[in-house]
Amino acid sequence: MTTLETYPITVGNVTRHVPLVETLPGMRIPLIEFLGDTELVEEAARLLKERVPEEAEMLFSLECSPVPLVHRLAQLTELPYVVARKRRRAYMEDPLIQEVPSLTLGASDTLWLDRRWAERIMNRKVALVMDVVSSGGTMKALDRLVQRAGGKVVGRLAVFQQGKREFDGEVDYLYEIPIL
Amino acid sequence: MTTLETYPITVGNVTRHVPLVETLPGMRIPLIEFLGDTELVEEAARLLKERVPEEAEMLFSLECSPVPLVHRLAQLTELPYVVARKRRRAYMEDPLIQEVPSLTLGASDTLWLDRRWAERIMNRKVALVMDVVSSGGTMKALDRLVQRAGGKVVGRLAVFQQGKREFDGEVDYLYEIPIL
Repeated sequence: MTTLETYPITVGNVTRHVPLVETLPGMRIPLIEFLGDTELVEEAARLLKERVPEEAEMLFSLECSPVPLVHRLAQLTELPYVVARKRRRAYMEDPLIQEVPSLTLGASDTLWLDRRWAERIMNRKVALVMDVVSSGGTMKALDRLVQRAGGKVVGRLAVFQQGKREFDGEVDYLYEIPIL
Repeated sequence: MTTLETYPITVGNVTRHVPLVETLPGMRIPLIEFLGDTELVEEAARLLKERVPEEAEMLFSLECSPVPLVHRLAQLTELPYVVARKRRRAYMEDPLIQEVPSLTLGASDTLWLDRRWAERIMNRKVALVMDVVSSGGTMKALDRLVQRAGGKVVGRLAVFQQGKREFDGEVDYLYEIPIL
């Protein structure tokens, strides 16, 4: 039997002892999963609601781990939401394509935003929503997508900031978690 | 200006006029999107709740379009849920890997289920949840994953059946939608 090291993660009144995973040699991070955890999502959405700027007219996130969070936050704030996809879908017409800036070579991601969704963002004040921000590259890509779609970013929200952010742009996060 | 043909989709008290998209030459399907539509998800979850077998101990789905639906259904039924991923994640250890059987060559998908999640399915009675079923290949892959993880499938639920199912296995769906 292997002993799995865990790390305690707390969001409001919910605590989870999550596994520590080694994503790069010598770098261990607590593995936080909102997908499949209704209690954790509920508590995070409740707390993030207070951080959504009054002027925000829409929420924007990406697939897939932040989806339950942004969905519930949209319900609580009664704002519409849009998510960027990580794969091209057959039905997409004239999508906006945005590379995620990355610090590590060869591990780049691409975000796809169907034109019909981009049109919903146009002229809207948008709050970006993520579960976990680390270098900030993904948040930066969401930011660029909103700008390119003709919207205005009025907030960048996250539940967790993990390690040090390398890309510019303020993020309003609830908790910090370490890289061990 | 292009005229976009739409098709009316109804779930309970919610109707959407969704675009018709041509996924294969000469084959048009109504494009149904639960992602980003809190009203549609809410209504579908409310109706699907009645179809979840009494004996079900867990829900199982896949990323990403069914995620808001299975998340809300899990909240309403107070059952835990697990989702299979469509990409390998760096943190996965000894994952179950399942090909999605496909009728069209070269368009195959692969599902990944981390061992830690598979262990939660073991010895559990599981209801499969999808938004849209067409050939039934994805439902079949979910079925196989549950079996391989040592669980028992006690229900196969979907909001929509689109066209004709080609793979075996009964599906309890709410509505039929055509291929035009």
